[in-house]
Amino acid sequence: MTSTALPPLANDRFLRACLRLPTDCTPVWLMRQAGRYLPEYKATRMKAGNSFMGLATNPEYATEVTIQPLDRYALDAAILFSDILTVPDAMGLGLSFGAGEGPKFAHPIKDEADVAKLAVPDMDKLRYVFDAVASIRRALGSGREQRVPLIGFSGSPWTLACYMVEGGGSDDYRLVKTLMYRRPDLMHRILEVNADAVAAYLNAQIEAGAQAVMVFDSWGGVLADGAFQRFSLAYTERVLRQLKREHEGFRIPHIVFTKGGGLWLEAIAATGCDVVGIDWTVNLGSARARVGNKVAIQGNLDPNVLFAEPEQVRAEVARTLESFGALRPGAGHVFNLGHGISQHTPPDNVSVLVDAVHELSRRQRVAQG
Amino acid sequence: MTSTALPPLANDRFLRACLRLPTDCTPVWLMRQAGRYLPEYKATRMKAGNSFMGLATNPEYATEVTIQPLDRYALDAAILFSDILTVPDAMGLGLSFGAGEGPKFAHPIKDEADVAKLAVPDMDKLRYVFDAVASIRRALGSGREQRVPLIGFSGSPWTLACYMVEGGGSDDYRLVKTLMYRRPDLMHRILEVNADAVAAYLNAQIEAGAQAVMVFDSWGGVLADGAFQRFSLAYTERVLRQLKREHEGFRIPHIVFTKGGGLWLEAIAATGCDVVGIDWTVNLGSARARVGNKVAIQGNLDPNVLFAEPEQVRAEVARTLESFGALRPGAGHVFNLGHGISQHTPPDNVSVLVDAVHELSRRQRVAQG
Repeated sequence: MTSTALPPLANDRFLRACLRLPTDCTPVWLMRQAGRYLPEYKATRMKAGNSFMGLATNPEYATEVTIQPLDRYALDAAILFSDILTVPDAMGLGLSFGAGEGPKFAHPIKDEADVAKLAVPDMDKLRYVFDAVASIRRALGSGREQRVPLIGFSGSPWTLACYMVEGGGSDDYRLVKTLMYRRPDLMHRILEVNADAVAAYLNAQIEAGAQAVMVFDSWGGVLADGAFQRFSLAYTERVLRQLKREHEGFRIPHIVFTKGGGLWLEAIAATGCDVVGIDWTVNLGSARARVGNKVAIQGNLDPNVLFAEPEQVRAEVARTLESFGALRPGAGHVFNLGHGISQHTPPDNVSVLVDAVHELSRRQRVAQG
Repeated sequence: MTSTALPPLANDRFLRACLRLPTDCTPVWLMRQAGRYLPEYKATRMKAGNSFMGLATNPEYATEVTIQPLDRYALDAAILFSDILTVPDAMGLGLSFGAGEGPKFAHPIKDEADVAKLAVPDMDKLRYVFDAVASIRRALGSGREQRVPLIGFSGSPWTLACYMVEGGGSDDYRLVKTLMYRRPDLMHRILEVNADAVAAYLNAQIEAGAQAVMVFDSWGGVLADGAFQRFSLAYTERVLRQLKREHEGFRIPHIVFTKGGGLWLEAIAATGCDVVGIDWTVNLGSARARVGNKVAIQGNLDPNVLFAEPEQVRAEVARTLESFGALRPGAGHVFNLGHGISQHTPPDNVSVLVDAVHELSRRQRVAQG
């Protein structure tokens, strides 16, 4: 029997919504909320030699940038500042970020010999992440004074494999899919190692102080039906089966987000996760009808809405809340974007969004009596 | 009352399947089947100064490359060699293709003044396309000797608008979505002009000899639920309403393909099209259960399957045919990839695919009695 006890917090809306418990209004946080759209983030990054990994590997800087959006906006959760690809970096693949570019691996997986060498890394190589988690927890305050809960995260086994085989981003996923279709045995081996590594990594984040964890299956949506279930979802399940469901007596919600996974919501909800993240292509009301009393739903505003005028942002927030519908007992909604916030976002529109979520959802609850 | 008469052809499997009439085996063609994976295509392209538009604007070369894959493989349809962006080029936006790059517009739409200038182009500017259609029809043979039918096509109004506003491809569709969310009035104006232009363009292709037409909504899937219906599907419908349903007494099937549109299949099938194209994320059996006796279904093998070994390609073809299930009266399946074939495809695997579709689907029908 898993505990449903929540830790004492100044604001526990996010954790309550994850577990489908009543809330005074809908909680909101934003994927990539600590990021380049904030001038204060850029300033901290300059201190770290303008390097993304320089920020992520320094617990002091990682803490600073994690807290920045909380000081500006009434967000209901903090998320660890890190990258989804820290685990394969610890496996020795050599992660780097070129100026203005996406992630690159110096030693991508090319053949059977590379696969044979793969192993769950020593978690000591990821100590900087766990130190950042502990440091952020301290900065958030303690006990009933803790401002908001802290979310830890990792890439999913499949998403890590995409980068590990492609060596970086891709338009067509040709290399990783060629390996998958030609040598499914090797792909399954990579995914087994990734799943066990991700589970150990997330459990260590939980032990260091993460109060919820999220698996980003950013590239699950590029798979064919059938292949998604065998090569992505099965290994997300393998992660979830190994994850701590509670820590120090408090429940740790598990969130799974598959970009482009709208067709597979039922299967994702059946993995045993607490929350399913959805992108903007899915209607929230339909998603709820399909899975809504089994899991909470997180999402799903198009980040590009934040380029509109403030009153248009408010209108789109209203539309999103209405599409979810009345918050009856047993349903849970965590407001979020359907993908990470753009670096070009006007910071003032984020205030408009966050305040509109709280105000309009509070009003919605009052109207429903 | 629309005619269901089909033109006399040596091979009418494709047209029959589009109209959900019985066939001896499942017809197959491949998006981008005339393309860079074929050495003979590259040879013709060199004659045209190694220029994509050099090929597309020369009816003789366009005919040559359209016929090439038919000479190699037992494909059941030809598709006009052209680009989805010819219409905005004719509007004066200045289409070009850099070496190894995607399409670019020299004069993208930036502001209200640019929108005000937009108009349905004089179809004479697209004469090279209609000449290519007529030339390909001649090359395919005439009357009962015609090898296979010819498909004409265009980008959808929304997909054209994406390129027209972004000026080329995009990762985040920030410019076009910013315009859509901030100035929906301008976006609707662009889409009205595009829809009327696409309808005129496809009707002129039909008059020149296209025996089926396909609307490629390549970027419909990047839209949020709600926005897809208002900004993409509504204008695809506006095209379809204006399209000729028959020509010279023969029925012209209309195909709509929305990449990433799996969540909206019912709405797409309700547009009045004859065939809905689907990508590999959708299970064919589920698609059929949702829409299968209203429209035929075209798809949906992942093009990356063609990088596997021949026996694996056959196995994936078998899996795809089985996922569609028994071909009962009233259902129609056109086998295709879920997206264009990759330029890196080994040509021999295309033979394996095409032959496997015919052989296995013929056997499937026999087994069903």
